[in-house]
This record gives sequence, C-alpha cells and structure tokens, in this order.
Amino acid sequence: MSGKTLGIGLAGFGTVGSGVWNILKRNSELIRERTNGVVTLEVRKIAVRDLNKSRDADAPADRFTTDVNEVIDHEEVDIVVELIGGTTTAFDIVARALKAGKPVVTGNKALLAERGQELFALSRQHQAPILFEAAVAGAIPVIKAVQESLIGNQIDSIAGIINGTSNYILQRMTEAGLGYPEALAEAKELGYAEADETLDVNGWDAAHKAILLASLSYGGLVDSGKVYVRGIEKVTPLDIRFAKELGYVIKLLCLVRRHESGIEIRTQPSFISSKHILASVNGVFNAIAVKSDAAGESLFYGRGAGQEPTGSSVVSDLVEAARLLSNGGSHRGFLPGDQEPVLVPVEETATPCYVRFKVTDRPGVIAEIASALANAGIGISGTHSPSDPDNPDAEFVDMVFVLHKTPFGLLKDTLAEIENFDSVTERPVVFRIETL
Amino acid sequence: MSGKTLGIGLAGFGTVGSGVWNILKRNSELIRERTNGVVTLEVRKIAVRDLNKSRDADAPADRFTTDVNEVIDHEEVDIVVELIGGTTTAFDIVARALKAGKPVVTGNKALLAERGQELFALSRQHQAPILFEAAVAGAIPVIKAVQESLIGNQIDSIAGIINGTSNYILQRMTEAGLGYPEALAEAKELGYAEADETLDVNGWDAAHKAILLASLSYGGLVDSGKVYVRGIEKVTPLDIRFAKELGYVIKLLCLVRRHESGIEIRTQPSFISSKHILASVNGVFNAIAVKSDAAGESLFYGRGAGQEPTGSSVVSDLVEAARLLSNGGSHRGFLPGDQEPVLVPVEETATPCYVRFKVTDRPGVIAEIASALANAGIGISGTHSPSDPDNPDAEFVDMVFVLHKTPFGLLKDTLAEIENFDSVTERPVVFRIETL
Repeated sequence: MSGKTLGIGLAGFGTVGSGVWNILKRNSELIRERTNGVVTLEVRKIAVRDLNKSRDADAPADRFTTDVNEVIDHEEVDIVVELIGGTTTAFDIVARALKAGKPVVTGNKALLAERGQELFALSRQHQAPILFEAAVAGAIPVIKAVQESLIGNQIDSIAGIINGTSNYILQRMTEAGLGYPEALAEAKELGYAEADETLDVNGWDAAHKAILLASLSYGGLVDSGKVYVRGIEKVTPLDIRFAKELGYVIKLLCLVRRHESGIEIRTQPSFISSKHILASVNGVFNAIAVKSDAAGESLFYGRGAGQEPTGSSVVSDLVEAARLLSNGGSHRGFLPGDQEPVLVPVEETATPCYVRFKVTDRPGVIAEIASALANAGIGISGTHSPSDPDNPDAEFVDMVFVLHKTPFGLLKDTLAEIENFDSVTERPVVFRIETL
Repeated sequence: MSGKTLGIGLAGFGTVGSGVWNILKRNSELIRERTNGVVTLEVRKIAVRDLNKSRDADAPADRFTTDVNEVIDHEEVDIVVELIGGTTTAFDIVARALKAGKPVVTGNKALLAERGQELFALSRQHQAPILFEAAVAGAIPVIKAVQESLIGNQIDSIAGIINGTSNYILQRMTEAGLGYPEALAEAKELGYAEADETLDVNGWDAAHKAILLASLSYGGLVDSGKVYVRGIEKVTPLDIRFAKELGYVIKLLCLVRRHESGIEIRTQPSFISSKHILASVNGVFNAIAVKSDAAGESLFYGRGAGQEPTGSSVVSDLVEAARLLSNGGSHRGFLPGDQEPVLVPVEETATPCYVRFKVTDRPGVIAEIASALANAGIGISGTHSPSDPDNPDAEFVDMVFVLHKTPFGLLKDTLAEIENFDSVTERPVVFRIETL
C-alpha cells in the first residue's frame, strides 16, 4: 500500500472545521502510524464566507478562498468535507463533489435527512463514497454501529438523547429549577447553544438524526414532513418537578421503533424512569440505546458535539475515504436504500402518559375528568396533585393523571373533549412516558 | 455490484457457531436488503470434533465434517470462521486459510493476543483480511471503535469490564453476600461460567482482550508474559463489604493507559467508585470506557458474550469480508503494527490503594503500621476498622488503610516489611483504587 499524501478540501471553517484542522495538525503522524503508513492527510483548501473572520485554528492564509468551487475543483483536493450546514448551498457542494468522483465527508444531518436520497443516488452513480459519522451524535460512532456492526440484526428500537443543547437546558431546569428562558440564556452564555437555537430546541436537529438512523435501519429515508417532532420550548419547571416526584426525568428523546405495520419515529420531550441509564446522560453528552434481535441491548455514549469530538468523527471518515482512494473498494458501509419505510401514524402509537390539567378547585372536578377518561376506555394508573403549601386554598390547582398505555390519537380526542369542561381552565399538558 | 452468494466455512460449532448459523438462517434476506443486494451469505461447511453431539442449531448433516481441512480447502468456501478456541490447532487453521488467500473471521482472543503478530503478518503478505470484532466484548463493536472510529485520536486510556463470568460472580458476592465458591457454583449452574472456568476467573480472558485493544491503540502486541494479571479467586465477602462501606464496588477491571514512558496494561479486581457508570455494569453485560484526546470520553455497553450477541459480531465481520471479496479493497481496519510497545512495569504505576491487615488487637498496632507507612513516604487518606458487634473483644481484627496515590513497587516493599511485624497475622490484602 502506498503512502501518498491525500489532499483535503474543507467547505466551511467554523467549530467543526477548526477541530478537523487542529486534530490533523496535532495527530497526522499518529494517523500515519496507526494506518500502517498508508494514510497521510493534508488540508489544502478551505472555503469560507469571510476571509477576515477570526478563527479557532491557525491555518495559513494561502489555504483560504471564498470560492467553494476552487475547493471542489482543485486538482490537489482528493476528498471534500462539507461543513457549512443548510440544505441548499451545501447540497450543491456535495452533489458537485460526488459528480466529480470525489469522496465526500459531511456532518450535515439536515441535508442528509431532507435530501439524502438524491445524494445517495449520486454517490452510487459516480462510485464516490459519502460518509457522515459526524452527522449524528458528535464523537459517538453510532452510524458505524447501525450501518456495519449491527448489519446482521433486525433492529427493534433506537432511543437517543442526541441534542446536547436541549439536554443541557433540561438538565439545568431540573437541577437548578430554572425556567426555560433562563436556562436557554445560560446555555448561550456558555456556548452550549448557538446564537440561533431554533433547530436545537424545537426538536428538529434530533429528528433529522433519528431519520438518518432509521434510514440505515429500515431501507430508506422517510419524508421528514410526516415525522412527529416537538421541542422543549414549552417544558415548564412545574412538569419537571412533578416528573421528579413521580420517579421520572424529562429528556428530549428521539425514538425509532419497528412495528409489524411499519416504523415509528418521534422526537419529543418525554418522561423516562430516573433509574434508566439514559436518565443520567447529562450536559453535552449524548447516548443512544439500540435494541436488536441478535446483539440485544447496546448503548453508545460520548460527547455529542463540539470542535474536536465532532472533528474526530470527520477525521475517522477522512481516513476511511483515504483508504478507499488508496486501495480501491466500495463504500465503507452500505447506504440507505431508496425505499421509503412505512411510517406508523403517531396517533396509532401507544404509551403510558402523563397529563396535567389546570382546573378550578371545586367538588366533582376529579370525578368529571376521570369519567371522561373511563368512557374513552383510558385507564388511570395514578394521580398526583400535591396542594400548594403556600396557598392551600387556591382557586386553580394542577391535577396530574398518569395513564395506562393509550393510543395517542384516542388520548388527543379525549383531551379535546375534556378541554371544553368549564372546570378546565387551560389546555392539558401531555408527556408520553417511554419504557425503554 | 454483484449479488454473488458467498460461502462460509465454520471451524467449530459450539455456542458462537450455532449463533452464527441461527442469525444467518433468520436474517439472510435482511442482510441482503441492508447491503443493497450485495451480500448473500451461506454456511457451506462446518468442521466439528464429534458429528454426533447435539447442537443448538439445526444445520443439515451434509454440511458437517470432522476434517477441518475440508472446510478451508473447499472451493465453495470463500471465508473461513475460526471458533474452536485455543492457540495451536486454531493457529494452524487461521494460518492455512490466510495462506490460501481466504479472509478469516475469528473470535479467538487468546490466539490473537499470544500469536497475533504472526497471523497479522500472514494477512498482510497474502492480502487476506483477518477480522476479529467477536474477540472482545461480544456484541460491542469496540474493536471497530478503536481501530476505525478513534483512528484520529491519541488514546489516553481504556478501562473495561470485559469478562461476564467474573462480573456475574462479583455481582452475586456483592448483592447476596455469597462467598466465591458459592457464587462460582451458581454461575456454572446458570450457564454463565463454563465447565472449566479458569481463564475467565483468573483474569486471562480479560487480559487477552486488553492486550488486543492496546495493540490497536499503540502500534503492536505486547508480550503477554510481561502483563500484570490477577483473577477474582481470592476476593472475599469481607473486602466486598468494606468496599461498599467506603463507597466502592469491586470489579474485575482491565486497564490500558498511556504514559510518557510507555503503556500500562493491567487486569485485576479493583475498587471503583460506586457512582461511576462502570460500577453499574452488571451480569453478563460488558462496558468499555475510552478516553482520547479529540473525542474525549466514550463508553460502549452491551452484551459481552453469548450465542447471538457474539454471533452478531461474527456476522458483521462476515459482511465486511464479503464486501471486500465482492468489491476489492484492503482490510477493513488497520491491523496492529509489528512494533512492541514499551510496557511500564507495574511497580512504577501509582494509584490510591486499599490495604487490609489482619492484626492482633493490642495497643500500638495502628501506630506501628502507620509509622512504617509514613517512613516509606506513603500517605494515609483514611482508615476503616469497624469492630465486630458480635465479638467486640475479638483477639484478631481487620484494619483497613486507604492510601494516597502510591507506586505499587514501593507499596509491595513496605508491606513485605509490615508483614513481618509480630502483630500482623496474615499477608495484607491489597486492592488498587482506580479513578476513571
């Protein structure tokens, strides 16, 4: 095997790009040794929007350009790394590189979840690999686990905490009793949330990752428009407190599950038992629990974001791409197929639930709600309604019902009815309780 | 890419071999789909010692032979799987298959740790891959993690609970207060320990795995004769109780750590904080925590043994081998190099320690021992010596000292001296306290 140095072109030089630069600068010799002298990598071109912006990495000025085509077309760039994010310019960059037969490494989950099918087709057509370990869960090699390690398994479920920003915010709300706005402000101050936090807190970042994991498990990408996604913006300290009192924690959970009739994909703040290992995944750590028929339960845990953790996954894919270029061979793992899996509608999925009602505190309220639930055939496994010690004679109180496994559609319909009761003063708050 | 069916030859058809058969029988079509129609696998020959033994899998009689050469040489066998264990016949099988240019998949940690260097050389020479995910930690893809995912990282440490038998025995001793012989008997009855449990309980199974992980991280295999290995046979319920009272659990831990001067590899029953995530790895589960410079902390958790979990890793390697055969390309991951890493002698490694002395209960004993430790420059961070409520006037008592970080050689020398004190009636018991 030859020791030819391979040229890397970076499109984008933000957090992850700087991480890739720094890792390669520090560990290039190590990588050469660990690959038996085969792989030497060098970053040769870097496309950025603003040449004058200050950076976390000291790449020489002559590597930079504002013209991304210069990166893709450069004859000494063998592998293109797309790290600019978004689904338009990024799409063009990746598509163009694949058409030029150059392997692409990307960490862009939105791009792959929304437009992956087109890119996977280009990858096949032009025999140019597309590698994306960095797109899901930072340093955690969960793409490789699902795509390669569990290839002989029927995958039954994937449950993940895969958005560090949301996880940090919920943790601070849980530990310090902060409200959502305060916890978000703190996360921004510490650099755990971006200036525009939208995709992190509204669940879509995690949902894109879940869609990708599902595509590797079940034959293709689902239409993201059909996936049930809720964010953490409306989680209140009160529900977090009640969760704790009931033995749960609230986590932004993404869930992929196989049913006879199709697959379930959901991302939403969920109740999980405070004893489950996922409950203790805190801060910027991510974890993914996979159940499959032969391997049984597996769990992968690590840093879910950040300069070098995500950079580590990019570098791993770069080495793989370099090995393919040096030695021939097909894609590392097998790409998702082009068959869209059948989605089980969220209304048909059933879990135990937590429902909190804000009610006027008068005789008969509990009976009224309980009857409506009973009439719908929904079983109540517990209630929780601690009176406020500071205001035992309050006019409005919070009443929690913990419900047995209930199809979500039935619950929604029943709650729509209960919401109209005179004694119910606000829209009921629902969290699904996941048994993992 | 073609859809040619590839033939598998199994050497050995015990627990893992049956698992491979059953997985392929159940999931062959799924594997074909998940590999975009590329990989179809069929077990064509199976070598066993005794044709009449009853099996956990219903392979047809015409596949079996007692002549392993028939498996290796069979023209319709494209990939050879070695699952017979041991380091002599297994070596011949693997070597012969590699020389024939056939990819080999093996789960044989002893073979690779003891004689891997010769086999890796043959693999390179004959361009025949050797894949061994099943050799370490059952279903957990930790070989792939170290060999591929963390290839861009300087690996700082690997700490693992990677022997399910020992872990089960220690767990039962901890939970049920059983003695070692009773816990071992129970493990055998439940099938968690083999008829000959030696390699599991004496630490060598875990040590072989640690040597393999170290070889992938640090350039080559170390001479196993130089590695410090202790088993769990002498762990007592008393030390387990004291550990608990001090906030620790005792786990058979394998540890690989990088120092400036070389690497440290140890396998021994160790104290770890009961709050650490590894402390809650119970039963037949395994877990490996890796620290590395770019990715930071990672943890991999799953079933560490058993028919289908280990079979799952074999099948994953079979798919990889099939892909290489179908499409060309080099070894999946990079094999360990042929440079033997420098081992830091265990005497030079330093940790906090737990030392229990059995002493004659007379005035001055504590002072005597404490002075000897002080003279050696060993700091005491705590003592623990609960008097026995059933016998508060006992003649002999157990005294525990928790020591600050101490080089193991210095501790050994100092204890040799203390052991000779008249008041010390037994050889002191030492456990190292690992901060992970």
